[in-house]
Amino acid sequence: MDRIVVALGGNALLRRGEKLEAEVQRRNVRRAAEELAFMARDRALVVVHGNGPQVGLLALQAASYTEVAPYPLDVLGAESEGMIGYMIEQELTGRLGGRPVAALLTQVAVDPNDPAFRLPSKPIGPVYPEATARRLAAERGWSIAPDGGFYRRVVASPEPRRILGLEAIRILVEAGVVVICAGGGGVPVVPTEDGGIRGVEAVIDKDLTAALLAENLDAGGLVLLTDVAAVFADWGTPEARPIRSATPQRLRAMQFAPGSMRPKVEAACRFVERTGRWAAIGALQEGLAVLEGRAGTMVRADGRDGT
Amino acid sequence: MDRIVVALGGNALLRRGEKLEAEVQRRNVRRAAEELAFMARDRALVVVHGNGPQVGLLALQAASYTEVAPYPLDVLGAESEGMIGYMIEQELTGRLGGRPVAALLTQVAVDPNDPAFRLPSKPIGPVYPEATARRLAAERGWSIAPDGGFYRRVVASPEPRRILGLEAIRILVEAGVVVICAGGGGVPVVPTEDGGIRGVEAVIDKDLTAALLAENLDAGGLVLLTDVAAVFADWGTPEARPIRSATPQRLRAMQFAPGSMRPKVEAACRFVERTGRWAAIGALQEGLAVLEGRAGTMVRADGRDGT
Repeated sequence: MDRIVVALGGNALLRRGEKLEAEVQRRNVRRAAEELAFMARDRALVVVHGNGPQVGLLALQAASYTEVAPYPLDVLGAESEGMIGYMIEQELTGRLGGRPVAALLTQVAVDPNDPAFRLPSKPIGPVYPEATARRLAAERGWSIAPDGGFYRRVVASPEPRRILGLEAIRILVEAGVVVICAGGGGVPVVPTEDGGIRGVEAVIDKDLTAALLAENLDAGGLVLLTDVAAVFADWGTPEARPIRSATPQRLRAMQFAPGSMRPKVEAACRFVERTGRWAAIGALQEGLAVLEGRAGTMVRADGRDGT
Repeated sequence: MDRIVVALGGNALLRRGEKLEAEVQRRNVRRAAEELAFMARDRALVVVHGNGPQVGLLALQAASYTEVAPYPLDVLGAESEGMIGYMIEQELTGRLGGRPVAALLTQVAVDPNDPAFRLPSKPIGPVYPEATARRLAAERGWSIAPDGGFYRRVVASPEPRRILGLEAIRILVEAGVVVICAGGGGVPVVPTEDGGIRGVEAVIDKDLTAALLAENLDAGGLVLLTDVAAVFADWGTPEARPIRSATPQRLRAMQFAPGSMRPKVEAACRFVERTGRWAAIGALQEGLAVLEGRAGTMVRADGRDGT
């Protein structure tokens, strides 16, 4: 069976401007599951999902309850893997013709000397007025950075180095199970002196984790789904036009905004460069068409479209 | 390899009177993981854990943040599977000699006509003064019940009927992976009219789920660990004495307090009655000795001790 890794963007599970109510997420997850079920037909599918809005909500809830100190970011990330993984698993059940589905918690090793730790840049959680942000930074050891007229907490976004649960994922995929894993890019961990591991207060880009996972699983293709129909040339200008197919070289020569299309393009290019296989970027509601090269942007070493 | 299902009580992960700070849980999980690592040596181990205090904390945090309505209990249960599963998985990593470990989210089917739904009896979350409890019950559709001089929310505790992720669990166990699953007894789900499933606001007893899982996996034994050294005869009296070994018939003739030892005894009796194999009940810090019949209470069809 063709083996595909699919990454669902946080914006695909919660549209811009929507409130994070349970029923809103549920409805969006149901739509995503309908598309994933099409994509899983006759294919081995591994699903990676974002968690940006959800981990933000869990952090706000934790901070609102003052009897117990808020849990560190790695634990909140694991909670969000539980929340979202459960909803996706539940909505997939009954849509896969009886095929089993499993949602796994995933830890991903990062390098404690990753330069990202010296320059935390990934904003998480709400915006605060400067004085509040500075107080929280002092109280909780946060790094903060300006965001519009406000400030936000920023954390490091280190490179994913090694997926710790890879063997279990591979066993399940080879047995025909549809696997949901590495939610939010996986919980970042580093080695401890006693031979174990511990979580760190950082966030791994889930598209980069999905690319590493696809490479490690010898996947035939990598599909990165978001709320935008394709990679666009001249995005934000009147000349904006979708790119139907491209080589990694062509995409690497272009400029993309950090935090939105840039990590997707980087993930797609890495997978294609390292494996010679294809990656595709497009809209969640066209997932199957993106996978089959009928919509979105197809990235291949030779630049042709189609899969 | 001998296949064993182990259930860790919520009180084994958070001792009575302890505050639910992240570091307190971490320390307790680390102790539990040290014992589990001993138990996993030369055995296939499946770990089920409780989530009572943790789901209570998540509910309090969610209720304290008023911008988004608190998530329903099934989602909070999944979040707690993420939180606790992650911590156990992380603390086991490095203690298993390189053997893989996986934490899975688990849904468990219950009967929508289970009589438990007509008589919600399982208390969850904090105690409230009567007026507050009545207001919350009206606002949120809760059932409430008296608890000391206060009131608490109560939910149904239906029977676990079918473990939905069983196939994935079995595949991993047979491949030698140490599996953490069915946290909190698994998230209870019922069928929907369109052939899918949905979560319900209930709590499944995790010891009963562990017994069903052990039966379904053809486990050789079931180990139920808590913060008490054994099943006691005449508990709470000056004549209290530990029972070293017993038949299910003998235990079923005794009285146990609901919510503490009673579900463990029920789970042990069911597993032994249905399979003819053994079940053991004892203290987490003596986990290996309980498994090997050197501590705790051994339940066997013929009443002899030892495994």
